[in-house]
Amino acid sequence: MSDFLSHETDPAEALKAAFRRHASGVSVITLVGTEGQPVGFTATSMTSLGATPPLASFNVARGSSTWPNLLEAKHVAIHTLGAENLALAQRMAADHTQRFVPQDWIVGPEGLPLFPAATSVLIARVREIHNVENNAVVIVDVLEGKLGSEDDALLYHHRKYVKPGEELA
Amino acid sequence: MSDFLSHETDPAEALKAAFRRHASGVSVITLVGTEGQPVGFTATSMTSLGATPPLASFNVARGSSTWPNLLEAKHVAIHTLGAENLALAQRMAADHTQRFVPQDWIVGPEGLPLFPAATSVLIARVREIHNVENNAVVIVDVLEGKLGSEDDALLYHHRKYVKPGEELA
Repeated sequence: MSDFLSHETDPAEALKAAFRRHASGVSVITLVGTEGQPVGFTATSMTSLGATPPLASFNVARGSSTWPNLLEAKHVAIHTLGAENLALAQRMAADHTQRFVPQDWIVGPEGLPLFPAATSVLIARVREIHNVENNAVVIVDVLEGKLGSEDDALLYHHRKYVKPGEELA
Repeated sequence: MSDFLSHETDPAEALKAAFRRHASGVSVITLVGTEGQPVGFTATSMTSLGATPPLASFNVARGSSTWPNLLEAKHVAIHTLGAENLALAQRMAADHTQRFVPQDWIVGPEGLPLFPAATSVLIARVREIHNVENNAVVIVDVLEGKLGSEDDALLYHHRKYVKPGEELA
């Protein structure tokens, strides 16, 4: 077996180069802020952590506008996004003062701001937060969920939003 | 704004229904086992945890064949996979005694078993392991990396392996 084509000794450059080859599903996490305001962000790190009991995890930057609110939050809503939610994904990753547009969201369980245009939402309780350098891993217990319209999953790859394509197996 | 279409009060069913709407990038994690043997598995939970310093995380089932080996491991290799690596993804998710085929892998830094057919590999040091019920979150420091051939990222969606498709933005 031959070797790899190139070697990157700088670890930060190695990470960036590897993640340019990786794709992620896109989700939106929301919560109630410390002042009662709706807070949220687009995440590409959300993943399941087992179904028995039902758990999920996501990563958050400790320098983000969400972070001080998340530290006080008992619950979060995790939305999976479809291709039709592209504008929502972009808005929830941009200026944090412009993320919640009137008539785009509703108030759900635990007062959580929910986007009914998402393909699904999970209502979850914050269980553990592990600080790791400038970021944190958040682990949540899933309590219940709601389904929206069926749609192709929204993906992030090569710094672009894409749809799933050809099925391989 | 209208509400969601349906409500699922069972949390495990809610999780499953939401993740049927979600897509994930596919990676393969490898390590040296407690007997010196190559060990590894296909993961859909691998994600970046910040670039400064470069960190990544992935989840592992504590009932898996990998788990007792991971507990003793100081390093892991994280491979991103492309569409051409479909057979590798399938094999590393099947019978754990059949995952390493001669001439398919090489010995890399720290003695790690590496698949040069992958689109990239990151060599990483295990930093923290957080047990959460039947699973664990593993956090690693990226040390260096290697790049393989460029290829479309391999995705997992609706229990199928797929390629990225139409670019949306």
